[in-house]
Amino acid sequence: MQERGYCDVEVITTGCIVAPKGFKAGTTYCGIKIAKDSLDLGIIFSEYPATGAALFTTNQIYAAPVGLSRKIVQGGRIRAFIINSGNANACTGEQGYKDAGEMLRIAAKCLKISEDELLVASTGIIGRTLPMDKIAAGIKAAAASLGNATEHGNAMARAIMTTDTKQKDIAVRLKINNKDVTIGGITKGAGMIAPNLATMLCFLTTDVSMPTSLLNECLRKSTESSFNRITIDGHMSTNDTIAIIANGASGINISANNTDLQVFQQGLDYVTNYLAKAIVMDGEGATKFVQIDVVGARLRSDAVKIARSIADSPLVKTALNGEDPNWGRIVSAAGYAGVELDETKTSLYINDILIFAKGMPTQCDLTTLSTSMKGRNITIRLELGQGDGKDTVWTCDLSHEYVTINAEYHT
Amino acid sequence: MQERGYCDVEVITTGCIVAPKGFKAGTTYCGIKIAKDSLDLGIIFSEYPATGAALFTTNQIYAAPVGLSRKIVQGGRIRAFIINSGNANACTGEQGYKDAGEMLRIAAKCLKISEDELLVASTGIIGRTLPMDKIAAGIKAAAASLGNATEHGNAMARAIMTTDTKQKDIAVRLKINNKDVTIGGITKGAGMIAPNLATMLCFLTTDVSMPTSLLNECLRKSTESSFNRITIDGHMSTNDTIAIIANGASGINISANNTDLQVFQQGLDYVTNYLAKAIVMDGEGATKFVQIDVVGARLRSDAVKIARSIADSPLVKTALNGEDPNWGRIVSAAGYAGVELDETKTSLYINDILIFAKGMPTQCDLTTLSTSMKGRNITIRLELGQGDGKDTVWTCDLSHEYVTINAEYHT
Repeated sequence: MQERGYCDVEVITTGCIVAPKGFKAGTTYCGIKIAKDSLDLGIIFSEYPATGAALFTTNQIYAAPVGLSRKIVQGGRIRAFIINSGNANACTGEQGYKDAGEMLRIAAKCLKISEDELLVASTGIIGRTLPMDKIAAGIKAAAASLGNATEHGNAMARAIMTTDTKQKDIAVRLKINNKDVTIGGITKGAGMIAPNLATMLCFLTTDVSMPTSLLNECLRKSTESSFNRITIDGHMSTNDTIAIIANGASGINISANNTDLQVFQQGLDYVTNYLAKAIVMDGEGATKFVQIDVVGARLRSDAVKIARSIADSPLVKTALNGEDPNWGRIVSAAGYAGVELDETKTSLYINDILIFAKGMPTQCDLTTLSTSMKGRNITIRLELGQGDGKDTVWTCDLSHEYVTINAEYHT
Repeated sequence: MQERGYCDVEVITTGCIVAPKGFKAGTTYCGIKIAKDSLDLGIIFSEYPATGAALFTTNQIYAAPVGLSRKIVQGGRIRAFIINSGNANACTGEQGYKDAGEMLRIAAKCLKISEDELLVASTGIIGRTLPMDKIAAGIKAAAASLGNATEHGNAMARAIMTTDTKQKDIAVRLKINNKDVTIGGITKGAGMIAPNLATMLCFLTTDVSMPTSLLNECLRKSTESSFNRITIDGHMSTNDTIAIIANGASGINISANNTDLQVFQQGLDYVTNYLAKAIVMDGEGATKFVQIDVVGARLRSDAVKIARSIADSPLVKTALNGEDPNWGRIVSAAGYAGVELDETKTSLYINDILIFAKGMPTQCDLTTLSTSMKGRNITIRLELGQGDGKDTVWTCDLSHEYVTINAEYHT
């Protein structure tokens, strides 16, 4: 279970968020979602004081829990997350802030911690105030059910789902100074993945201890090469939150930029990379998982601009859905990314077959290429011939199912 | 036939491109398109020397005819357009430039004008070289058929079509110094409107005379408020071209920034505005014509950024297709446009019904609103409460038909 570029890691596939030492999770169905027995509230809790870091949506329209958590995380001492699904608490004005604050107060009381030691996140319908009676009871129930068994971790991964069709979680165990260190994570949704249901959420736990500033830097780096490299439909949500708690229960402290930090970063990158790709694979109506590599750019930032431009083009996405090697759409999407290109230096590979070489179509075997596109995984590689800048973005296709899900739903 | 903001104009709906004095058009089927009897080549010709101006795609990957015409138009003396449909002559390397140059040489010879007095444009499949034998014969046939009858103008509008389902043309007649002045135009397609068939093309003719610099300025202004305000799928083509010829045959010369110029500009704006909207109405799979007004922005440029962000969101477009007043998608699309917003000052109207007022959902009658969205025309109005900046963008919905057209086509 290794991938190029990653250190040796042991991969854990169940109970992931409570796999690191000293973490518990508790969940409940409290009636926010319509479907009964569909978990809609959860708490992730560190038994020990811990540091925390988080990143949030850059959307100017952001939900109340994002507004509150963004302030709280600046304190840097975080040991719990309280999360509900089924209602995003977004576009809910002052009441939204009151309700998010109330969630924090109730949870802090149940967990016997300070209100500035936990973050709140919500996902679901936009523009409706939270059913606070149900939520208050739910928080108490979730806190009462806290545990570190595999089923606690699995239930937590399910409790944050909205229209996700699959639970998305992973943990990795690695050695630092001959001691076991574990990093666990759960995630849901992508962009505005669902009808009125906002949000990509990702929660991470680890049993190393780390100063807040370093933890923040690790999370930022890891997000940059994972969640910031995926796109479903280019629509950024009001509630996106990625947050991590580091509680030191492994006995390992990472406090400087050394080899230990590099090993930890690689482990974290493994987790976020896996979770980000899991979101794309579960994209609304997705039938293809598409990797877009742009190489030979002047700058890395140019490469990612072009990769995103290709990934977000509805014409490229529909061609991928149709399993059609429509290179004209790919090349022209690269051309409007806002980066200077030289057509005569530009080449394109689809599934490793060269179809456009330095500005001219090749005589490649289109039948072989089309057949190769019938698989679930498709690779697009654009070579610009301008420098050493390169980057990768992952996306999915645009299918009839996407239109069905998003047009036939009614608010 | 008047609209607010426009001067008194007489609208002409047939033979439009040859409605101004001194213009002829000639068309032919020369075998570029597969469908027989589907016109695929045309010439627009001024009987008199004239000035010309043109704007082109800003895509870094641009077709050979765009590369050539961009240079030629700098000379400012233009009296003819030679256009083929069915093949874009894009991504065709050096051969593409040779072929486009050959089209110019043959046409110039037939028309007995200099090669630097005409522009060339192509639209259709990307990545295939032109069938020059057929095109050479076609240019001669088109030149031989030049005429200024209504049917010549109508045929010209059809000769530039690719997957357009409707001919798109208009002309207006207005008075300057008590003399008739006419402006005619034809257009096709939008963005990468069709499978591998690139391009928005627009050709305009007028019988005023104007110095090139002034004509260029008029065209730029008019394009900014029309073609630059529409979006189908946000995918910019390799071949977009908007070009105008002014031949002076009306006896009216406009040489300074005065009332005459304003009247002319209004007439030109009427034509480009009509043609741009016609493209949206004929967008691939479009079932809705959507006007997005953003008002109360700090700057006009902020307003258009936000309007475009809303217009290009697949989630907004699918909601419009589903006739669903899904305001959360609209507000959140505004939020990621890269413009600072204050949610508590932001309000949203759909079809003049206030659904989101200063950061909070209203108790409006959703049934009335949903019913109003069953019409073909939908208006979205976002008020930002920050200043006087405002702008408007027109777009269409994203339907199953769009996916069908673009996924089921095979290269």
